[in-house]
Amino acid sequence: MSCRFFSQFAIFATYRFKNMKIIKYPNQSEYKAILSRPTQDISVIEERVAPILKRVKEEGDIAIRDFALKFDNVALDNFTVNISEIQNAESLLTEDLKTAIKQAYANIYKFHEAQKSVPEKIETIAGVTCWRKSVGIDKVGLYIPGGTAPLFSTVLMLGIPAQIAGCREVVLCTPSNHPAIYFAASLCGISKVFRIGGSQAIAAMAYGTETIPQVYKIFGPGNQYVTAAKMLVNKEGIAIDMPAGPSEVAVYADETAKPAFVAADLLSQAEHGIDSQVLLVSTSETVVEAVNQELSSQLAVLPRAEFAAKALENSQALVVENQEIALEILNQYAAEHLIMSIENAEEVSEKIYNAGSIFLGNYTPESAGDYASGTNHTLPTNGYARAYSGVSLDSFTKKITVQNITQAGIQNLGKTIIEMATAESLEAHANAVRVRLANN
Amino acid sequence: MSCRFFSQFAIFATYRFKNMKIIKYPNQSEYKAILSRPTQDISVIEERVAPILKRVKEEGDIAIRDFALKFDNVALDNFTVNISEIQNAESLLTEDLKTAIKQAYANIYKFHEAQKSVPEKIETIAGVTCWRKSVGIDKVGLYIPGGTAPLFSTVLMLGIPAQIAGCREVVLCTPSNHPAIYFAASLCGISKVFRIGGSQAIAAMAYGTETIPQVYKIFGPGNQYVTAAKMLVNKEGIAIDMPAGPSEVAVYADETAKPAFVAADLLSQAEHGIDSQVLLVSTSETVVEAVNQELSSQLAVLPRAEFAAKALENSQALVVENQEIALEILNQYAAEHLIMSIENAEEVSEKIYNAGSIFLGNYTPESAGDYASGTNHTLPTNGYARAYSGVSLDSFTKKITVQNITQAGIQNLGKTIIEMATAESLEAHANAVRVRLANN
Repeated sequence: MSCRFFSQFAIFATYRFKNMKIIKYPNQSEYKAILSRPTQDISVIEERVAPILKRVKEEGDIAIRDFALKFDNVALDNFTVNISEIQNAESLLTEDLKTAIKQAYANIYKFHEAQKSVPEKIETIAGVTCWRKSVGIDKVGLYIPGGTAPLFSTVLMLGIPAQIAGCREVVLCTPSNHPAIYFAASLCGISKVFRIGGSQAIAAMAYGTETIPQVYKIFGPGNQYVTAAKMLVNKEGIAIDMPAGPSEVAVYADETAKPAFVAADLLSQAEHGIDSQVLLVSTSETVVEAVNQELSSQLAVLPRAEFAAKALENSQALVVENQEIALEILNQYAAEHLIMSIENAEEVSEKIYNAGSIFLGNYTPESAGDYASGTNHTLPTNGYARAYSGVSLDSFTKKITVQNITQAGIQNLGKTIIEMATAESLEAHANAVRVRLANN
Repeated sequence: MSCRFFSQFAIFATYRFKNMKIIKYPNQSEYKAILSRPTQDISVIEERVAPILKRVKEEGDIAIRDFALKFDNVALDNFTVNISEIQNAESLLTEDLKTAIKQAYANIYKFHEAQKSVPEKIETIAGVTCWRKSVGIDKVGLYIPGGTAPLFSTVLMLGIPAQIAGCREVVLCTPSNHPAIYFAASLCGISKVFRIGGSQAIAAMAYGTETIPQVYKIFGPGNQYVTAAKMLVNKEGIAIDMPAGPSEVAVYADETAKPAFVAADLLSQAEHGIDSQVLLVSTSETVVEAVNQELSSQLAVLPRAEFAAKALENSQALVVENQEIALEILNQYAAEHLIMSIENAEEVSEKIYNAGSIFLGNYTPESAGDYASGTNHTLPTNGYARAYSGVSLDSFTKKITVQNITQAGIQNLGKTIIEMATAESLEAHANAVRVRLANN
């Protein structure tokens, strides 16, 4: 998942950018090394987080208050956010921001609502009918980190599918009291908001406290402590959205790409933090060089220039012979975000089988999907796109299989079941059919 | 997931069965304790498994051969199962078993094929089009344990959705060489079969060896060592089907239930092993008593009677006042398998929101779903049904979001993105839109 958490202070600094590293025509044997991501070992963090989880499990609200004082220097009498504070948040926002959030809400809602499936009953053989019913996960928890940037967009990305899925209890924990977060929550129908953060917030939702309801699945980004807490409670049976890692983008650009756009897209990823992963793949040396020039000039005016420059210097631009090689590299990398600034982008994208989300053509920046086009921005990073999908309505839904067999149906299917159960040495399984056939 | 692994020897023994424990009209405050499952701590097993994984990662095939000799007392020269052995398996089966397996294959295929979704393109606002494309996970691994019972049904349950999803590489590891397993594999189009078992087989698929391809997601049941290995490789980024636990059934029976059928269903769960979980919930004391009598008589003739009897003695029958209470208890328990032997079962089942799979009415035994009705038997157990679904086509598929924005589209959406990005202090995200608007 895109780890949308970053340091507290935007740094206005003139930073001398030394270009992305360019690798020309690498051999296939080099791909693995070139595309490897930095490994992360969170076991040390887990060791520090485990006692926090244990105390919250045992002491509930008292532990939450202690940790808030200890880690955040906040004395919490009451961490339940009053419903009136959530409802009044709207009045504290500018009209422009309100309009933008409402537009994003509408688009994200429309895209996720279309993911609803109608249960189709399948009669596999006469008298044997099977189907799947979709049910919202009864209780879910959302975590939104604090810091200077209020991630209200993530409230929408998690709150909207929870709302459409019909999750009965949606709990939101966030140390932020930014009105945009509360406004986004109110649009999503979330009324249970708690102003707590860190690993103790994850523990509170996993185990429940006197004040905070226990949930079955926890979603949302966070720092390493939050991530470690999610991994630990996952081992105890609480589902989580997906494994986390630094956010990343791969841009595939051919000679039809516009270097200024490509540079802007790379920078929008790089500004997340110095661990952001950026990869440029191109069949054109000219484009790669032009992008590097654009990076220098665009970087100069960015408030978060220092982060971005450092992230870019750790990143790579690959010049490759042809499209086939480009696609092989991109599928091997399995980027969280893949921008395809190439001719016939939609057609070519059919050959991509490993990616979190794909952005087609010159006028589809990643930031559209990050905020407002309608797709979800919680996506598999760190190569997880090989096996995981991003967050969707499915993430908040269970599919329960249901079957109904008539007396005639068990006559039709009975022999098959008995034969197979007997061959697997499970006689009682066969008997469960035999008693029914005898009674028919 | 139903942990379909059990001890090696079926025991023909006369075992004196002492009835299920009956709890009449429990208070709501008691539900939690009554419904609690035995906790499992696999950390000790994990410590024993970790060095095995490490050796396979470092030494590949050599380590696989050493462990086969050490743990299974098998000297493996070549653990690749020859394609001719897979193709010839059919000739070693009885006609009846072949017919049964083919019938099950057809039903399971039909049910899972209906889970395919057609990507629908959504124009969220003019010029902004988003959709999801389904792609089979490129490389998946299936594990089927050994023992006396050849779990060829599980080969079908995992192999069929992998086949429909279009997974390019499907690897099957199993220490069994039973022809029914090879026949099921060949029906599912699986040609890469390796005769290895245990945690080393999981390691081989997670890391790859000289012989065994690395996969992105691993499916299948196994003993505690296999389970621990799956949990450990999952932490390293390999996806797994779902967390494992002892198999379980809850039967909800009213006065229309047939005690002989209910008893047969409870026994078919109980025969899996002494840790199997069985729960009977009924509004009728008469039915519960009749079921207990049936259990005694049916148990007497079962080959696996001793396991079943022990499992049943650890189990409970709850007599409750009314349907509302029964449903509350069943939703709280979140059974892997829920049999509803009640009047208007389908209508009432609408109120169930926590279960892995639901079996309606008197003629729908769990064993139908275990083998041949069409639904998948790999289901969330141990309460995981609160947040997890069973295995389906989705489990072998990723949904990649795709978006295509036109020049007009970015004009329509641009202001919203810029407004939100600026409010989240992500200027480069806003710039990625600004450069495109300027160029329009």
